[in-house]
Amino acid sequence: MRILIQFPEGLKQKALEYAKSLEAKGDEVIISASPNFGACDLALDEARNLNVDKLIHYGHAEFNKVDFNVEYVPYEIDAPLDLLPKSLELLKDFKTIGLVTTVQHLHQLEAIKRFYESNGKTVLIGKPFGFAKHPGQILGCDIGSSSSVDSKVDAHVYFGGGIFHPLGAVLNTKKPFLAIEPFDNKVEFIDKLRETYQKRSKGKILSSLKASSFAIMVTTKNGQHNMRLAEILKKKIESDGLSAAIVVANTFDFDSLNNMMEFDAFVNTACPRIAIDDVDRLRKPLLSANELMQVLSMKKELTALQK
Amino acid sequence: MRILIQFPEGLKQKALEYAKSLEAKGDEVIISASPNFGACDLALDEARNLNVDKLIHYGHAEFNKVDFNVEYVPYEIDAPLDLLPKSLELLKDFKTIGLVTTVQHLHQLEAIKRFYESNGKTVLIGKPFGFAKHPGQILGCDIGSSSSVDSKVDAHVYFGGGIFHPLGAVLNTKKPFLAIEPFDNKVEFIDKLRETYQKRSKGKILSSLKASSFAIMVTTKNGQHNMRLAEILKKKIESDGLSAAIVVANTFDFDSLNNMMEFDAFVNTACPRIAIDDVDRLRKPLLSANELMQVLSMKKELTALQK
Repeated sequence: MRILIQFPEGLKQKALEYAKSLEAKGDEVIISASPNFGACDLALDEARNLNVDKLIHYGHAEFNKVDFNVEYVPYEIDAPLDLLPKSLELLKDFKTIGLVTTVQHLHQLEAIKRFYESNGKTVLIGKPFGFAKHPGQILGCDIGSSSSVDSKVDAHVYFGGGIFHPLGAVLNTKKPFLAIEPFDNKVEFIDKLRETYQKRSKGKILSSLKASSFAIMVTTKNGQHNMRLAEILKKKIESDGLSAAIVVANTFDFDSLNNMMEFDAFVNTACPRIAIDDVDRLRKPLLSANELMQVLSMKKELTALQK
Repeated sequence: MRILIQFPEGLKQKALEYAKSLEAKGDEVIISASPNFGACDLALDEARNLNVDKLIHYGHAEFNKVDFNVEYVPYEIDAPLDLLPKSLELLKDFKTIGLVTTVQHLHQLEAIKRFYESNGKTVLIGKPFGFAKHPGQILGCDIGSSSSVDSKVDAHVYFGGGIFHPLGAVLNTKKPFLAIEPFDNKVEFIDKLRETYQKRSKGKILSSLKASSFAIMVTTKNGQHNMRLAEILKKKIESDGLSAAIVVANTFDFDSLNNMMEFDAFVNTACPRIAIDDVDRLRKPLLSANELMQVLSMKKELTALQK
C-alpha cells in the first residue's frame, strides 16, 4: 500500500522510525514535511498529488469528515504527576476547580481528578464545543471544556505541555488559571496573559482605524476553511465604502503576506489562533472577525463625530 | 467567471489593484497568498480546492503543460539603461561578451546589445536549456543562456534586479561575470561568489560524512516535482547500507524540516536553488543530488581506508 504519513510539529522526530516500521510490513511510505498543528489540517493536497492509498495522521483525533481514506493514530504521553502536590499549595484558596488537558494526556485526567478530590477539592470537567471530542479536552479552537464551567469553579487547572493550548482557555474565562507543565517542571498562574492579550487586541483595533483596504484570509485546510464567513466579511467591508479582497493559502506564509503591501489590514478566518499567536509576524494589523467588526463600528462613529 | 490570481513575491503589491480591475468586469476574484517564485509553482492545489474556472498567473511565462485552465500574464519592466556606460569601463579588457537578463527585461535585450556593439563589443546571446523559453533569458533553474556561450566569450553581463537570477549562471560558468542592477544603481563583478559557494558546498559535504539517515525532499509543485529522482536516490542510499525516506511538501517550511530531527542530512530534488539559497535555514546539511553522490562516494573511500 502507498501511504503518506503526517506528524504534528512536536512529534515530527518520530516520523522516520514509524515509516521504517510500515516499510518493514511491505508498505511504500512518504512523509509529509509540511507544518501541522491539528487534524483540522490534514495533508490532503499532498495525498492527492501523490496518489497515495491512505493518509495516516499521527497524534490527533478526527476533526471533521473528509473525502479521503484517513487513519488516525493516537499518541498518548504518560507525563509525570509529581508537580501535583506543588499545585495543591497554589490552589489552597480554591475549593472547586475546573480541570483540562490535551488529547495526549486525556488518559491521565481521571488520576489527576482523583488526586485533587482526595485532597478535598471538588473537580469539574467541562464539555468541549464539539471540535474537541472528549470532556476535559481543549484545542486551539475549542476551549469549551474550560469556558463551560467558568461560572461554577473557583479556579481552572491546565495539565500539559506548553501554553499554546491553555492560552485560548485563559483568554475566554475569568477565574484564576493555573498551568501545570510537567515537562518544563513549571506550575504557575497564567492569568496575567489576559491583560497582555487584551492590550494587544486594543492596539490592533486602534491601528486599523485608518485602514481602507482589507485582506480577508481564507485557508484551504479541511477543518479551517471558511469561505462563507470571508464572503460575508467582504460584503460588510464593501458596504461601508472600503476595499476588500479574499486571499487564500494552505499554511499562510507571513513573508508573502508582508509582500501584499496594498492591504492596510488583514482579517483571519482560518484557525482562530492565527490572529492571536502570529500577530507579530505581520507588519500590518492582523484582526479576528470580531476585531474587524469593532474596527468598522468605530470607524463609523469617528466619521459621524467629524461631521 | 471565478478566478484565482497568483503573483510572484516581487509583484504581490499589485494583486489588489488587478483583482479590482477583474471584478469591475464582473469576475469573482480570489488572490493566492502563497509564496511564488515561478511558473514552475502554479497555485493548482488552491485553484482545485476553490473550484475556480481559471488561474491567472502573473509575471512568468508558461513553464510546463498542466491539466488546468491557466492564463499567463506577462509583466515587462522598462529598467533605466543609464548604467551601461559605467559597465563599459569595467568591460574595457573584454572584447566578446555574453548577455543575459530575466523575462521582465527581455524586451530591452536588443537595445542593450546594440549599445555594446556600437561601442566595439561582440555580443553573444546564448540559448537556454529549455525551461526558459527565450535566448538570453535566465531562470533560477535554467542558466543555459550563459553556460552555452561560456567557452566563446571573454566575460558575461547580466542585466536585471537582484542576484537570485545571475547566481546560478555565475556558479556554472568560468569567465568574469558583471552584474548590472538598474534598480539598485549597482554595477559590479560577482565572480567572487564562485569561491564562496564552492566553499559552502565543500562544507556541506564534509559535515555529511557521518550522516546515516537522509531525508529526500520532493515538492508537489507542478514544474519541480521529481519523485523519480527521489526514488533513485533512496535506493542508492539504502544500497549503501544507510537509511533514507522521502519527505514531501509544496513549499518547504524550514521550521518543520528542523523538527524532523531523526535525519542527519537533507537532499533536495525540488528547485535546484533550494540547496544553494536556503542552506542556512536548516540546522542539518542540505545537499543537492550531486553533492549527495559525492558524500556517498567519499563515505565508501573512508570505510575502505579504515579497513
